[in-house]
Amino acid sequence: MPPPVDVPLDATKVPGLPSTQFSPRSPFENPTLAPLNVMSGSTLTPLQHLKGSITPSDLHFQRSHNGIAVIDPAKHRLVIHGLVNRPLSFDVDELKRFPSVSRTCFIECSGNGRAAYRTPKPQMTPQEVDGMTSNSEWTGVSVKTLLHEAGMKGGAGWVLAEGGDAAVLSRSIPMEKMLDDAIIAYAQNGEPVRMSNGYPMRLVLPGYEGNMCIKWLRRLKLIDQPNMSRDETVKYTDPLPDGNSRQFSFVMDAKSVITSPAFPERLKGAGWWPISGLAWTGRGKITHVDVSTDGGKTWFEAELVGQVLPMAHTRFQYMWEWKGQPATIMSRATDETGYTQPTLQEFRTVRGPGTDYHYNAIRSWTVAADGTVGFGG
Amino acid sequence: MPPPVDVPLDATKVPGLPSTQFSPRSPFENPTLAPLNVMSGSTLTPLQHLKGSITPSDLHFQRSHNGIAVIDPAKHRLVIHGLVNRPLSFDVDELKRFPSVSRTCFIECSGNGRAAYRTPKPQMTPQEVDGMTSNSEWTGVSVKTLLHEAGMKGGAGWVLAEGGDAAVLSRSIPMEKMLDDAIIAYAQNGEPVRMSNGYPMRLVLPGYEGNMCIKWLRRLKLIDQPNMSRDETVKYTDPLPDGNSRQFSFVMDAKSVITSPAFPERLKGAGWWPISGLAWTGRGKITHVDVSTDGGKTWFEAELVGQVLPMAHTRFQYMWEWKGQPATIMSRATDETGYTQPTLQEFRTVRGPGTDYHYNAIRSWTVAADGTVGFGG
Repeated sequence: MPPPVDVPLDATKVPGLPSTQFSPRSPFENPTLAPLNVMSGSTLTPLQHLKGSITPSDLHFQRSHNGIAVIDPAKHRLVIHGLVNRPLSFDVDELKRFPSVSRTCFIECSGNGRAAYRTPKPQMTPQEVDGMTSNSEWTGVSVKTLLHEAGMKGGAGWVLAEGGDAAVLSRSIPMEKMLDDAIIAYAQNGEPVRMSNGYPMRLVLPGYEGNMCIKWLRRLKLIDQPNMSRDETVKYTDPLPDGNSRQFSFVMDAKSVITSPAFPERLKGAGWWPISGLAWTGRGKITHVDVSTDGGKTWFEAELVGQVLPMAHTRFQYMWEWKGQPATIMSRATDETGYTQPTLQEFRTVRGPGTDYHYNAIRSWTVAADGTVGFGG
Repeated sequence: MPPPVDVPLDATKVPGLPSTQFSPRSPFENPTLAPLNVMSGSTLTPLQHLKGSITPSDLHFQRSHNGIAVIDPAKHRLVIHGLVNRPLSFDVDELKRFPSVSRTCFIECSGNGRAAYRTPKPQMTPQEVDGMTSNSEWTGVSVKTLLHEAGMKGGAGWVLAEGGDAAVLSRSIPMEKMLDDAIIAYAQNGEPVRMSNGYPMRLVLPGYEGNMCIKWLRRLKLIDQPNMSRDETVKYTDPLPDGNSRQFSFVMDAKSVITSPAFPERLKGAGWWPISGLAWTGRGKITHVDVSTDGGKTWFEAELVGQVLPMAHTRFQYMWEWKGQPATIMSRATDETGYTQPTLQEFRTVRGPGTDYHYNAIRSWTVAADGTVGFGG
């Protein structure tokens, strides 16, 4: 929290504050993660307070399965073993001696949007609806570089990645992804990865569900088939209405959320208002976002603001002349594969009411004649 | 500062920490601005602690001329007047109703590198050498949009921009720049602009010297010629050896700095080490960076890491096989206009010893046989 400060009546008439070791936020701004003091759970990014595309590192959503591990980097090693010619291990300083790569991408929890789907309430904020996605510049070493150092044996089709936290979370990752764009990240938005994001090192799999981007990474084991570890069997599987299940649904589908206007905002009067939000997809770039202000009857193409990067949050905006009528506003993202977000009804039909992960149906917000905004499901 | 925390011997054997409203840094990392408690002065970004290209907002360098203004956004307005058809004023909420733009670019103090030029010491860190440059994603409204709202009168060739801090800093800016890519920014790396960066709004002029990117912006006056305000006459002018002076030298020239290896690092032994640093230019994109490990006799092209954006910090790296010999390492940036950083001798010849601003000579670091690194001027 920024320190309490005196606010002068006229800042031109009194000297300002001296500089400090960190630049604090203004006391008039209070974006925070929520809910707080969750021991093993989820703390969400305040999307409604953010502009542009980067998520500040201290506001990146948190998800841990047995708390946030505190690790001394001098005692932490990443082991690479299994189907390799030369088992290797590295501490973070050794990783930094390899060529680095940087990439801006989102990480989204596979369960993001669950409450908004199962128990929607008008009084949900964008943070509560979809706050388990965040966007950062990640810097580290390509997994490919390290696997070439270790030398892969024939048959190594998967990699078991394991965390060094108290949950010892582990997932099996296809070798194809590991050799494509997987990164072992030691930095986030320029600085060392924050504790809750896996300090001193984490896996980043652009476009894949967040739980596979193993934090506090301590082990990569090259294996010939999925390990079927606890975390990929008891969780991250979706029962379907026909009795089958979706398992190993790694890639996050195209999705969008309006962050303004949204609860608890109130439009102060008729006139031009920007409808602004974020769109993203695990399958490359967002190609366009459509916005509706009449509950999905007609759609207009929104502008994409700033850079459009693959597997990254993309800001969209649509200038709306609100005439004071009740309205339902919606956004709909399309990605470079041609895939478009499904309607809520389409999503419900295919996935059923009990589905647990990968919620990407079109969302709506209702604007009342008095300008109040509520989440519409 | 992160709260003091217990560090377990084995983080897999005890539950981790609960989540909190902000994700703290690891207690094992301590990047901070320096020097501290500077009332009216400069506090520098710890470049040697950073990776990738983004500067965390709380580590953006600070420069103020009468302290950091504390402003209640509800009481702050931006006035646009002078040679306009309709004088206008906006608070920050009103600015947010215009279409937003986002752009990642550096802001560099025009005096960055002064101590390294005038009083170089081997014990200077990258922070002390060149820490008055930082790189952020800025979001706000195009100045062009607002000037079109106000309607420009004939003859309006310049804009006086004035801050609402206790220095009431003001500069005259060419209309051409204002209509090109100038932004009134209310957000920085996704969140509201930090207090020391001009909350609730600042001017961002991509590629121009930092002092023109007026913070705590309260006034834009369209005028027919430069105002010759105090800040653009008593400062920001460079005496040249021939008795003439450089004034209105707005654009920052191409420049680079090695951030590793650099003081106080010590190479732990012969072998492969990445030479990594940042390059930037106010004249577009960096096209290449060359690195020398023999004091400038031979040069090798470095790799540019991640995105190369115009007027933005660009990370470079060069893999160097150090054989244990004493060495002098240097970096040299070239931009898309074909301009290349001058040598220290070339710079000194043209600009003289008393020059005050726009230091962009090639820098060097010396590596001793025991691996210690010192700043070489």
